[in-house]
Amino acid sequence: MAKRVAIVGAGVSGLASIKCCLEEGLEPTCFERSDNLGGLWRFTEHVEEGRASLYKSVISNTCKELSCYSDFPFPEDYPNFLRHSLFLEYLQMYADRFNLRNRIQFKTKVCSVAKRPDFTVSGQWDVVTLHEGKQESAVFDAVMICTGFLTTPNLPLGSFPGINDFKGQYFHSREYKHPDIFKDKRVLVIGMGNSGTDIAVEASHLAKKVFLSTTGGAWVISRVYDSGYPWDMVFITRFQNMFRNYLPTPILFWLLARKMNSWFNHENYGLAPEDRIQLRQPVLNDELPGCIITGKVLIKPSVKEVKENLVIFNNTPKEEPIDIIVFATGYTFAFPFLDESVVKVEDGQASLYKYIFPTHLQKSTLAVIGLIKTFGPVIPTGELQARWAVRVLKGVNTLPPPSVMIKEVDARKQKKPSGFGLCYCKPLESDYITYMDELLTLINAKPNLFSMLLTDPRLALTVFFGPCSPYQFRLTGPGKWKGARNAIMTQWDRTFKVTKTRIVQNSPSVFEKLLKLLSFLALLIAIFLIFL
Amino acid sequence: MAKRVAIVGAGVSGLASIKCCLEEGLEPTCFERSDNLGGLWRFTEHVEEGRASLYKSVISNTCKELSCYSDFPFPEDYPNFLRHSLFLEYLQMYADRFNLRNRIQFKTKVCSVAKRPDFTVSGQWDVVTLHEGKQESAVFDAVMICTGFLTTPNLPLGSFPGINDFKGQYFHSREYKHPDIFKDKRVLVIGMGNSGTDIAVEASHLAKKVFLSTTGGAWVISRVYDSGYPWDMVFITRFQNMFRNYLPTPILFWLLARKMNSWFNHENYGLAPEDRIQLRQPVLNDELPGCIITGKVLIKPSVKEVKENLVIFNNTPKEEPIDIIVFATGYTFAFPFLDESVVKVEDGQASLYKYIFPTHLQKSTLAVIGLIKTFGPVIPTGELQARWAVRVLKGVNTLPPPSVMIKEVDARKQKKPSGFGLCYCKPLESDYITYMDELLTLINAKPNLFSMLLTDPRLALTVFFGPCSPYQFRLTGPGKWKGARNAIMTQWDRTFKVTKTRIVQNSPSVFEKLLKLLSFLALLIAIFLIFL
Repeated sequence: MAKRVAIVGAGVSGLASIKCCLEEGLEPTCFERSDNLGGLWRFTEHVEEGRASLYKSVISNTCKELSCYSDFPFPEDYPNFLRHSLFLEYLQMYADRFNLRNRIQFKTKVCSVAKRPDFTVSGQWDVVTLHEGKQESAVFDAVMICTGFLTTPNLPLGSFPGINDFKGQYFHSREYKHPDIFKDKRVLVIGMGNSGTDIAVEASHLAKKVFLSTTGGAWVISRVYDSGYPWDMVFITRFQNMFRNYLPTPILFWLLARKMNSWFNHENYGLAPEDRIQLRQPVLNDELPGCIITGKVLIKPSVKEVKENLVIFNNTPKEEPIDIIVFATGYTFAFPFLDESVVKVEDGQASLYKYIFPTHLQKSTLAVIGLIKTFGPVIPTGELQARWAVRVLKGVNTLPPPSVMIKEVDARKQKKPSGFGLCYCKPLESDYITYMDELLTLINAKPNLFSMLLTDPRLALTVFFGPCSPYQFRLTGPGKWKGARNAIMTQWDRTFKVTKTRIVQNSPSVFEKLLKLLSFLALLIAIFLIFL
Repeated sequence: MAKRVAIVGAGVSGLASIKCCLEEGLEPTCFERSDNLGGLWRFTEHVEEGRASLYKSVISNTCKELSCYSDFPFPEDYPNFLRHSLFLEYLQMYADRFNLRNRIQFKTKVCSVAKRPDFTVSGQWDVVTLHEGKQESAVFDAVMICTGFLTTPNLPLGSFPGINDFKGQYFHSREYKHPDIFKDKRVLVIGMGNSGTDIAVEASHLAKKVFLSTTGGAWVISRVYDSGYPWDMVFITRFQNMFRNYLPTPILFWLLARKMNSWFNHENYGLAPEDRIQLRQPVLNDELPGCIITGKVLIKPSVKEVKENLVIFNNTPKEEPIDIIVFATGYTFAFPFLDESVVKVEDGQASLYKYIFPTHLQKSTLAVIGLIKTFGPVIPTGELQARWAVRVLKGVNTLPPPSVMIKEVDARKQKKPSGFGLCYCKPLESDYITYMDELLTLINAKPNLFSMLLTDPRLALTVFFGPCSPYQFRLTGPGKWKGARNAIMTQWDRTFKVTKTRIVQNSPSVFEKLLKLLSFLALLIAIFLIFL
């Protein structure tokens, strides 16, 4: 009989998990607390407990060619970066295309997931759920937890002396939906992650004054990257990653700073990261520097003290009157339905081998999917995790002995900088391509570029120098997708199709070619003169 | 007795004209139709007839260090690019500082300005005004017209077949104030000037869909230019202008295209200018590419036909449903109070010597101030025009004979490309620094860089390589300002003071310096590898 798998959550990782189970011949049942699929990406006007909450204007951080499920490209008329409604539409299409919907039990909250008494032999779990007031219990051979890490807000009020005396309004960014509340107010946003920056920028359209407070600063990247390509189509390539992994860290940081400062000098804009040794993931925002240079957003250091209607910043004498404080201070995560003995969360970390499997269970029948932050797309990460995890749950792949897993996890927790490559030092952070390659190797689906260079050199070069799009993960091995090669070779076409909506005829004449040559010489002379 | 000068309009040029008259000992009377000063920059919620109209969110296109009156820098805590309220505040400070207010008659419309019967001898004018229903007439020795060119909207409905059948709403961009009207609508903005682009971007925050239609395309520049410097602090320098004026036009256009495309490839974004021979002034916008890549604004070619609820674009089969059309189709200008025999406006041109003096009047006692479009700041242009014009009106400077003036104007109207330098081919368009230098030469206030290089080399280099800020126009000659040198040497300090609001301590160690050297070598190797 096919193994029964309980999947908790029908967001992007949950959907991928259902599909992977079906493909491997397992019997998935997905429990979704809310009344529809999509998880994070299903925007609602009101915050729902236990589900991630978006603001209305949110736009995906990674582009459509990199963000999709690896065998299901976005429709080609979708823009490169997507608002939530289109993203949700895509998830619905995915669920329909692969018949995932009938595997989901909506409005069903998972109350507890506990080892059965015979766990050491059977590896089975008792899953207790609550559906419309009715509690049910069922036995499952395996469990996949796909609840993400954006549901439990981190609100460090203790670090803000005087906050209790504050007469204005304050709330966590999770509560934020529309900018209207900021109209003619003096707004302070605390925390310069993607949400905090988005909220500050959006507030600046309506507010009287907007401050964005950051302790550590951050590099800011625009979606419109070099020559206007989507940032991740240029940044996330195997070629660039090679550099990023093998150059000495100080050189790399220097190069990175140069690159980041080429858009705008982060020091002049008050944004320069304080820590020049550890890389904090850059913030994606197209408008922030424009807001700073027009005085619509003012960057401030950390908050020293809050008073009734004022805020005092560190190293700044002036008190600033403030009406609203938004705490964009991120999230913690938790598994309230799991006993600590199964997965223990400590300092924002869980002891999960490859960010997926608890290291110390007698049977590897529980997997956590999507609990990792790479500076890359979320969907393909969760999907590839699920592909491997399902094969482990099924028994096709096996985990190494606990000692090996514990050693790996401990090393990761310590995160000692090696002196080479980038050092992502926050919990859950990892390098995208490196991590994906690890998983691909585990399921034997990593494309061999050397042999590909002989059989299909064009593809090999595109895979190495081009964007590391998820189709690459379906070129070979189990789960191979026939459309993968074509999807890779046409990824740029789909990228430009939606922006090149006005065509200008350009027929470069012989004269123009000649001109180009001459101009190049002139340019050389100009450069020579400039540096003279 | 001091000559009496009538000044029409109390906007940026009108204020400068009053001040120049006072400084040269003339007796100015300024007639302002509305009830306050500031002209264009005085935002009102409702459009006022005969006065330029702004939208609420407008931000100055040129930065504070380049946009100010040459002897009156902006307060140093002002942001680099200014919203209308701050700009107006500045104009009010200027008026107060130089006691200009008591020279302005508010709520006074100029009905006619006509030569007196003895004009050939006296050069005098009859000026008829209307104040609160009462008409008055007075004689003036000279007239300065400072009404600008943004009051008479150009609404070319004839070029939009079917527009009369359109069931939606349409209006000229002049009527636009707030984005609320676009909420959940399908919006089409016609024309890709600064206003059109601003409106499309702003609409995209609220609208269901936004199309921006452009026939000729345009280069788009961000205020956040190279390394985050205000664009004009880098772009408008004497050094760069030398290149722009003396390189062969095709090479220059090629270099310009390279530069413009380094932010984003304009062809991929549907924006590439059609005309590669004549330069249309670039559009300033920080957000447009971000809006295009996220699908919030769609670029379209020109409109072929309008139907009841639809618009059809040229070279595009699909009909697009549209609710609102905004005609951002610019302005024409006119002098309704002047007889055609004084200044004739034809094809958006007037026969004005140096864009100021009618070529064929028997006496040079009428000047038009601020009727020119340079790709540079407006205030210093009008101010310098006024400085020269007032000296002509006073009789200190004289104009060349009509034949010389007519020849110059005709040559300008024909605008034959010389094959060198940029070719601004639209009416009223001219090169900023070149034009300013012409005026400076006329009043003998052009700084002599060669002799300055000997006496004050630091200043000379800053004037040549640095931004061409208006303080340069007060270094020498009549109107010399003692504060000019210091203002020039501290212009960058004022620029960064308002953005560097969070300071990160940086103490580069010896190691870091060594590292820089090593990194440079590594970079060279990396570049070598990339181009291998």
